[in-house]
Amino acid sequence: MQKTKYLVIGGDMRNFYLAELLKKEYHRVEIYGFDKKDIKNKNSSLAQMINDCDVIICGIPLVSPDGYVNMPFSTETLPLETLIEMIPEGTVFIAGKIEKDVRNTLENRGVNYIDLLDREDMAVLNAIPAAEGAVELIMRSTPRTIHNSRILILGYGRIGKVLARILTGFGAEVWVAARTYSDLSWIEAFGYKPVHLDDLERYITDMNVIVNTIPYQYLTADVLNKVRPDCYLIDLASQPGGIDFKHAEKLGLKTDWALSLPGKVAPLTAAEIIKKTVENVLTEGGRKK
Amino acid sequence: MQKTKYLVIGGDMRNFYLAELLKKEYHRVEIYGFDKKDIKNKNSSLAQMINDCDVIICGIPLVSPDGYVNMPFSTETLPLETLIEMIPEGTVFIAGKIEKDVRNTLENRGVNYIDLLDREDMAVLNAIPAAEGAVELIMRSTPRTIHNSRILILGYGRIGKVLARILTGFGAEVWVAARTYSDLSWIEAFGYKPVHLDDLERYITDMNVIVNTIPYQYLTADVLNKVRPDCYLIDLASQPGGIDFKHAEKLGLKTDWALSLPGKVAPLTAAEIIKKTVENVLTEGGRKK
Amino acid sequence: MQKTKYLVIGGDMRNFYLAELLKKEYHRVEIYGFDKKDIKNKNSSLAQMINDCDVIICGIPLVSPDGYVNMPFSTETLPLETLIEMIPEGTVFIAGKIEKDVRNTLENRGVNYIDLLDREDMAVLNAIPAAEGAVELIMRSTPRTIHNSRILILGYGRIGKVLARILTGFGAEVWVAARTYSDLSWIEAFGYKPVHLDDLERYITDMNVIVNTIPYQYLTADVLNKVRPDCYLIDLASQPGGIDFKHAEKLGLKTDWALSLPGKVAPLTAAEIIKKTVENVLTEGGRKK
Amino acid sequence: MQKTKYLVIGGDMRNFYLAELLKKEYHRVEIYGFDKKDIKNKNSSLAQMINDCDVIICGIPLVSPDGYVNMPFSTETLPLETLIEMIPEGTVFIAGKIEKDVRNTLENRGVNYIDLLDREDMAVLNAIPAAEGAVELIMRSTPRTIHNSRILILGYGRIGKVLARILTGFGAEVWVAARTYSDLSWIEAFGYKPVHLDDLERYITDMNVIVNTIPYQYLTADVLNKVRPDCYLIDLASQPGGIDFKHAEKLGLKTDWALSLPGKVAPLTAAEIIKKTVENVLTEGGRKK
Repeated sequence: MQKTKYLVIGGDMRNFYLAELLKKEYHRVEIYGFDKKDIKNKNSSLAQMINDCDVIICGIPLVSPDGYVNMPFSTETLPLETLIEMIPEGTVFIAGKIEKDVRNTLENRGVNYIDLLDREDMAVLNAIPAAEGAVELIMRSTPRTIHNSRILILGYGRIGKVLARILTGFGAEVWVAARTYSDLSWIEAFGYKPVHLDDLERYITDMNVIVNTIPYQYLTADVLNKVRPDCYLIDLASQPGGIDFKHAEKLGLKTDWALSLPGKVAPLTAAEIIKKTVENVLTEGGRKK
Repeated sequence: MQKTKYLVIGGDMRNFYLAELLKKEYHRVEIYGFDKKDIKNKNSSLAQMINDCDVIICGIPLVSPDGYVNMPFSTETLPLETLIEMIPEGTVFIAGKIEKDVRNTLENRGVNYIDLLDREDMAVLNAIPAAEGAVELIMRSTPRTIHNSRILILGYGRIGKVLARILTGFGAEVWVAARTYSDLSWIEAFGYKPVHLDDLERYITDMNVIVNTIPYQYLTADVLNKVRPDCYLIDLASQPGGIDFKHAEKLGLKTDWALSLPGKVAPLTAAEIIKKTVENVLTEGGRKK
Repeated sequence: MQKTKYLVIGGDMRNFYLAELLKKEYHRVEIYGFDKKDIKNKNSSLAQMINDCDVIICGIPLVSPDGYVNMPFSTETLPLETLIEMIPEGTVFIAGKIEKDVRNTLENRGVNYIDLLDREDMAVLNAIPAAEGAVELIMRSTPRTIHNSRILILGYGRIGKVLARILTGFGAEVWVAARTYSDLSWIEAFGYKPVHLDDLERYITDMNVIVNTIPYQYLTADVLNKVRPDCYLIDLASQPGGIDFKHAEKLGLKTDWALSLPGKVAPLTAAEIIKKTVENVLTEGGRKK
Repeated sequence: MQKTKYLVIGGDMRNFYLAELLKKEYHRVEIYGFDKKDIKNKNSSLAQMINDCDVIICGIPLVSPDGYVNMPFSTETLPLETLIEMIPEGTVFIAGKIEKDVRNTLENRGVNYIDLLDREDMAVLNAIPAAEGAVELIMRSTPRTIHNSRILILGYGRIGKVLARILTGFGAEVWVAARTYSDLSWIEAFGYKPVHLDDLERYITDMNVIVNTIPYQYLTADVLNKVRPDCYLIDLASQPGGIDFKHAEKLGLKTDWALSLPGKVAPLTAAEIIKKTVENVLTEGGRKK
């Protein structure tokens, strides 16, 4: 693995840090698509850079909303097809959120692709900066200490697990709502207070902070009506989210919908996580685990 | 659920405590098969007791090695078929390790059976007394404090998760060996030191204590040869276990193979766990979750 | 204690919250000096309000830099002597930082005064919001997660103890520098990595974050020269502080000198702490402990 | 310090381990008074061994109940005066519990003595094996897990602090009783439930386990009458202890009076603690800190 030649094409600050981290470990790394950061591309053309490398790493997501390769720090626009056509057989192609048809094209060309968003190891490690981001929001948005606060987390998935642990370290009273008895057993085993999601309304009235991690609207108007007026609510769930924000606003509740926290609150750590995942991928020989 | 009538038939001390716990919550509970404990059966016959109850709870396992219903605190021998033939349709029948053919018979008779060993909620909660039992063994068997000891856990399943957390509370240096990158990510996320199972030999030399939870022999003669002579090893994995005990003995290593810890170290808690699981079962209407 | 009549005179937001908290517990509470907050004083004069109460609570500090009673949310200026002359014998007078001569005057008048800054119980509880404030600064000022960061705390006093514990909950690698072997033993007992203050230079090079709590300049130019260029430094020590800020700036190091954190980051909790301390004071009968 | 020559004279297993530990770090170490352990003394006489060494380490306590130098693993009886007369000026003499008159004699002879029981650093570190010993007793003596048990610790000194932390790691509900508001604040700050010692009777009824660390009898007959019949009580306080054991027996309560735990439960760690303290002593130049 020592002599692997990497080419980073676009992506946000995480990919910028990623290239730095790889260089520090004496890998050969080229970087493309950061001209706004005053990083000139090498003399060689993109096609040649691609030919010279073993592993290409693009952004998360691979494609930006305008349909081009995701390169927010570049003035250039690069169509995805143009990029893909340059990639020779046998190259490892790593990016986040690779669409079905793109996967097919890559496969047909004999390119070994890995979608980072499919990687459980990365998802687990990303729960750490996400949870820390939630803690930072709680600190900034409430007039009380986390110590002695009563905090309810909806969902005991990756972020729920990490967040519950950190908040306990602060001395908060941590409640976690889940559905299965197995999850509720785990919640109890780790010393948190378990709440069955069906009993949400009974427990919600006393909370100082509520953090939702479930992409389903449990925090409906009816439930929100029972929340303390000074309760602070964060939604970490992706679309459609889990809070009836309109009704929350009507009630004057303080809320935040916080997405993509890892890259925002800890871009360097997020880059390290990508690096570690890439290493795992290459160690596995490109096979998923 | 208030008026559910329970009948506990045999089982070990856990079932004895279980009956006590149910009574304390004002349930109607009869108990059968504890004559050695000076508990006389009621005047009525077993058949009548069975007819009068809604829920029958037998032991874990249901059948003892001699082939009869598991009743270690009774002088009586009760064939399983005799018992089953007495159970009327609609009764809930709860026990541990119900064999395939018995399940079929119960199903044909319209008896709603639940095998406690299928219950993930119970398995999770049982990891707590099991882990505490392992801690007690470590304390008893080593001349050093757990604080500052270097302890390696093989496997990051239920017991591994709970044990790692307790040992960290003592101030031990906790290492956990696992295979998947996702498990290794969790191990890192929770602040333990991750070891890939393939790299076991590289890390094993420095450990004061090794706790195996994987039912596969990773601790082979080759690996054991690299262990410190004063290292203490516990095997918590069921047959075939994970330690080459013969070779360990030859090396003069101190070892223990500790099975069925929950009932041994904390029978009252183990009974509470069965009770909670039974409640979950009845709340779910006998459906597994 | 139920019928104690309180009068809050000035102080910052903490005293505003304090009055609210006392009212919620059905105490009789008057508040004076918050006209900027649209809180009108009662019809009665200040002299009469003072005569009607058992306990007067002023701000922390009692006197503002301009020499008047500390009332930042009032347009009025109240000379301290004017206030003191109105206080009848037997009243309990509570404030922060009461100067020696003022104490003498109060004593001569038979007023039972308590300086909150003398209270160890309050100082301990205030360490919690102070430590949380430091955590918030770390999160905001570094591109990495606290998890896996290497953080050095100088001093193992109140804030050091609380901060070390919270950071460990995040999964940071926590180092604590102290001088006495007894403190170093405690640091080890709680699982942090101990550093003797004389050996500071040897350990400082690897830290991602350094938090100083000692009011003595250990972080001299010489020491700072050995710090990583991306290290973030917080000084929580009051004048003269513990960092050579001028030299740190020259080196381009990111630093913050964060004072009076409790009132800033968690005014409601800070008010609860004052309330609890006042209760302790009254329970003790005004005697220090 | 590399070339310091040590002579260990008697003491229990801790001193035996201590000699081993010092040898492992390549110190020159002689050992005397372990003939029952089949350790022959060197050819030279004790007088000569003493003349050849820089530091003498005796047992804790220095003198056994029969009045001779404490050497439980020797068949020899050595009067203390005989030993002291052999020690030349300038030698460092380390032991535990050196009586006043012995101290005077040593001083007059120009011997630099250190009583290990005066050392705060050793006392702190010894709290760890003591607390672990208490945990082992709790595990062995109760039919429930520590997880979810309600445990009351009387006293928030060294052992109380360490024990509360370990039990929290298990997921116990930890209550701590203390007298000063400053201690009660610390108890709250670290997330335990504070009880004022004057309110003991109000809280005692619900406890599964009570651990006393205060050498004063708070657990009087009156208080014990309110304890649950299945409550388990440990006394860690030295004479006169803190439990009315006679009354406890009458009530059928399960109790243990556990003293000198470090040497019993973790002799190797206890030896490491002595070694560390000796190192601290020598680094300080024999001055107390």
